[in-house]
Amino acid sequence: MTTLDPRSAPPTLDPRSAPPTLAAFLEEARRIVDADLARRLAPGKDDPGRLAEAMCYAATGPGKRLRPAIVLAAAEACGGSRAQALPAASAIEMLHAYTLVHDDLPAMDDDDERRGRPTVHIAFGEAIAILAGDGLLTQAFATLAELGPRAGDAVRVLAQRAGVHELLAGQAIDLTSPPQDLAAIERMHAAKTGALFAASAELGAIAAGAPRETCVALGRYGMAIGIAFQHADDRDDAELLEHAAAASARMKELCAQARDELRGLSAGALDELAGWIASRA
Amino acid sequence: MTTLDPRSAPPTLDPRSAPPTLAAFLEEARRIVDADLARRLAPGKDDPGRLAEAMCYAATGPGKRLRPAIVLAAAEACGGSRAQALPAASAIEMLHAYTLVHDDLPAMDDDDERRGRPTVHIAFGEAIAILAGDGLLTQAFATLAELGPRAGDAVRVLAQRAGVHELLAGQAIDLTSPPQDLAAIERMHAAKTGALFAASAELGAIAAGAPRETCVALGRYGMAIGIAFQHADDRDDAELLEHAAAASARMKELCAQARDELRGLSAGALDELAGWIASRA
Repeated sequence: MTTLDPRSAPPTLDPRSAPPTLAAFLEEARRIVDADLARRLAPGKDDPGRLAEAMCYAATGPGKRLRPAIVLAAAEACGGSRAQALPAASAIEMLHAYTLVHDDLPAMDDDDERRGRPTVHIAFGEAIAILAGDGLLTQAFATLAELGPRAGDAVRVLAQRAGVHELLAGQAIDLTSPPQDLAAIERMHAAKTGALFAASAELGAIAAGAPRETCVALGRYGMAIGIAFQHADDRDDAELLEHAAAASARMKELCAQARDELRGLSAGALDELAGWIASRA
Repeated sequence: MTTLDPRSAPPTLDPRSAPPTLAAFLEEARRIVDADLARRLAPGKDDPGRLAEAMCYAATGPGKRLRPAIVLAAAEACGGSRAQALPAASAIEMLHAYTLVHDDLPAMDDDDERRGRPTVHIAFGEAIAILAGDGLLTQAFATLAELGPRAGDAVRVLAQRAGVHELLAGQAIDLTSPPQDLAAIERMHAAKTGALFAASAELGAIAAGAPRETCVALGRYGMAIGIAFQHADDRDDAELLEHAAAASARMKELCAQARDELRGLSAGALDELAGWIASRA
């Protein structure tokens, strides 16, 4: 069995603690996405500054691959195939990896280690880490461009969610004015985590050719479980203990809202995922 | 008259030194693109960390706006309108601005000033500068997504040109193994400058709905004048003096090749632009 976090005992949201069907789905999704990422990001013979190697290192390290799993699950919920949604799944993981590389930089969170390995700027130097993040962000969009007539929609959704009004605003809030009350914390969770979970579910629906209202409903599903997931993650980190009881109640509420968005879809994995996150409340 | 570079006398490739018709076109393109960038990047009331302000500062400062002018000229050469190509023109300028913001960072070129103003990390801090570059790169793709059925093609071209195999490879070469001979210098120019000029011309053609072979020919046009432009820029900076004569000959050759790519198009501005760059050889 793969070690997900060598530093500690399995965290609460370790996929190995999920119900068996969901755990098997998550493991299978991780295998498919990791193989695709390894193929797409394999450095060529000519790799100035080891930039391509740094990108590959960043995106193929240990991780749960929850976001790309949501892409694949959402596509299947809309009657699409995993193959159809795989470019979007890999794109979202590249985008997630870029945010981690830039977050870890000395001018940002200044982290030396991530999931038991040196961070990219420790392993490859700061300049290459900046460029590697840029490269992963750029390649995320290159990968979405493979979706043919659906590429425009997919790019619009990912760029909006990852842009200055959502993901990057969340990072700017975290840097400059960390929130104190639960409502403000939740707005930051929505921007920093919810936005990419929302993009994941919506991209899966877009890749499957779902009608617009289904895409938007799955976006709301992703936003709700993304916020709930971040509440759980904070609790696991023993942060924000004073808000723990209120956060727990919100997790249940958000996961119930998320499940409501799945009406009319055959969304087994997405429903189980929301149930699993709620069960950690 | 706008001051383009307050630090010094007008550089050789100052648009004001261009032939009158070309100078008028470049000035008009700059006006149109700057108005569109100012509209797209206007910070809202809620701007955590002044991130949106930093993005706007980076993309709307002094500059020639040559790349977006090429987008508009290429679209017109293919029978398209400026309005049709404007999202692509603004996207390429956002992308160019992002490369400058990240290039100027302490871990990269460590520049305090650009065109007479403090660089973004000096004016807004290093963390916000990293995020502002990320935001401009992301918004470039969001803007291309407005091209509807042509968005997929446009995103593919820009992401390829700006990615790890071209633009970012050029930056990695510059950081880690600066080239010594003219052939190696030209490979770096192709990656660092040619790639975005190529993307500009090709995006203009794509936005205008030109046939694929025309888009690709305009990409070759952009690559050739991009390399020639960088040779001229290097000479203006009095760098690489030992290669000046050979570079001069290459500029003429590249601009002649570029003009050949315009066969069959009514490409007045693009032809004049190549002629103007050649005249500086």
